[in-house]
Amino acid sequence: MVVIDRPVDMHLHLRTGKMLEQVAPATISQFVGAVVMPNLNPPVETREQVEEYRQEIEKVVAQKGVSFIPLMTLFMKNYSERELKELKSLIFSIKLYPKGVTTNSEQGVAGIERIYPVLEIMEELDIPLSIHGETDGFILEREREFAEVYRKLARRFPRLKIIMEHISTAHLLGVLDEYPNLYGTITLHHLLLTLDDLIGNRLNPHHFCKPVLKTPADREALQLVVKRGHPKIMFGSDSAPHRLEDKLRGAAGIFSAPILLPALAEFFEGDWEGLQRFVSNNARQIFQLDPILPNRQIKLVEEKWRAPYIVGEVVPMEAGKVFKYRVVN
Amino acid sequence: MVVIDRPVDMHLHLRTGKMLEQVAPATISQFVGAVVMPNLNPPVETREQVEEYRQEIEKVVAQKGVSFIPLMTLFMKNYSERELKELKSLIFSIKLYPKGVTTNSEQGVAGIERIYPVLEIMEELDIPLSIHGETDGFILEREREFAEVYRKLARRFPRLKIIMEHISTAHLLGVLDEYPNLYGTITLHHLLLTLDDLIGNRLNPHHFCKPVLKTPADREALQLVVKRGHPKIMFGSDSAPHRLEDKLRGAAGIFSAPILLPALAEFFEGDWEGLQRFVSNNARQIFQLDPILPNRQIKLVEEKWRAPYIVGEVVPMEAGKVFKYRVVN
Repeated sequence: MVVIDRPVDMHLHLRTGKMLEQVAPATISQFVGAVVMPNLNPPVETREQVEEYRQEIEKVVAQKGVSFIPLMTLFMKNYSERELKELKSLIFSIKLYPKGVTTNSEQGVAGIERIYPVLEIMEELDIPLSIHGETDGFILEREREFAEVYRKLARRFPRLKIIMEHISTAHLLGVLDEYPNLYGTITLHHLLLTLDDLIGNRLNPHHFCKPVLKTPADREALQLVVKRGHPKIMFGSDSAPHRLEDKLRGAAGIFSAPILLPALAEFFEGDWEGLQRFVSNNARQIFQLDPILPNRQIKLVEEKWRAPYIVGEVVPMEAGKVFKYRVVN
Repeated sequence: MVVIDRPVDMHLHLRTGKMLEQVAPATISQFVGAVVMPNLNPPVETREQVEEYRQEIEKVVAQKGVSFIPLMTLFMKNYSERELKELKSLIFSIKLYPKGVTTNSEQGVAGIERIYPVLEIMEELDIPLSIHGETDGFILEREREFAEVYRKLARRFPRLKIIMEHISTAHLLGVLDEYPNLYGTITLHHLLLTLDDLIGNRLNPHHFCKPVLKTPADREALQLVVKRGHPKIMFGSDSAPHRLEDKLRGAAGIFSAPILLPALAEFFEGDWEGLQRFVSNNARQIFQLDPILPNRQIKLVEEKWRAPYIVGEVVPMEAGKVFKYRVVN
């Protein structure tokens, strides 16, 4: 049996309404907390919205009857100091989507200097900044082109904790180590898949996501850094459910939530300390999460388990695949 | 008015049956001949198959009431000298699909040395070799990895005319110039599109093809070499119709036939000699096609023309787009 102490998903899309009710249980049963992204329509930007969204999530948590903490986030805009002081206790971080590169991010920020006033306040109040770090350039160069923005922000706001979300390239892993205040999340799908899984054989819409899957060399670099237990790298699934109908119309996002711990257990196979660091300890240490996270352990047994073919209207990653480990509830 | 003398599509998929009847007219009305690929199911490998397929195509041509010559091809296998002597007058070239990389090419050839005996006979009989030049490696490296095979064949069979089909990378353009017996075709879609059109925004299955679309730098290199009128580079559309239903299930192939000359006229805009060379003269000179091609001209007028939204069950490239030039029939 594998016991994971307080696993946290540091990057999650839960949606709202019926979709939320359908997809959230997969996360609640495998994690004790998750950073919940604010890219709803409209995006989460006010105290009322944060509270309403958290309550909606907590209803689903209550139905599951386990302890789970949603770490709420705000969509970046020009918040005042007064607003952020009021919001601080309600949120984990503020999420920045550079213009037009990701789902529902049409309201995202283009010229990075425009948000310096907010970043100064965030640095002062110790509110982390989450970034979807891609430009709107050529699809395979978006992370590389964005690297300069990370550097600029890390230098300009040395006490601001900056989370480079879903790092997908070897290049960006290098940037992570240049500044002490840069942290990174890595998804399951970027750890396991490459562009070949999207466009190598038939086109597979279920493997389409942003940042797009990359090269075998990029995947190898991600695997290496995760296996070596880099202390600034945390697990963030970026699990992003879309209805099958929308996936077939080209929506970006992989719904990995149902298979996360079984797949990660296979990935770490035997190195349970490594798994513990990646899905829990690193994040808990970086952001001092212990006071707010439930003291709950998740157990996996070595027992064949088949991933669901569909959850509500959403096809999960590796639908129908048989895994070696099963989460015990 | 733009008049193109004897345009030829040097790489075309026409399918059979109802699909052939639906898609062939677009080509027949814009070209006086086309190299028709043999990847049917089963593939075209015998005298009977070639003749039957040609007759099927000629029936559609007869219905259109214009002159059009299908340049037939054979699927590569270990043909004997006797077979090829008998087949020579019926075909234009033999097509080699490296194993498993393209539609219906499961019967393709893996170890290139295995077909040396056939290539020797082809060289002797002056039968050109068409190659889909990709390995089964990582999707973005397949052409680069295949380059060594082109070099090997060009050196080993110096009198064999080798056609590097649908060149999609700057790298392979470089290889083309290394040997005098290497020739190349370039498609409309590789000239106009990049990976951004497939995976840059929403996933667009209508832009999925093999070789997959490449980088802006690759596209620029292709555009440059075509605009400069490279004498060894010919137009081959690789127009490859799939039913909409199959495209939505991930089939590779872009049906560009309906828009070819209007789109190429916009691409060459005013450089009508360049257009004439690319879609006709280069191929006619390299393969001495004049004795077999009908003496027919295709006219375009500068007049707005909207590409069809669907042809039979197939969605064409740039469906519904308004072009500046219209083909006059």
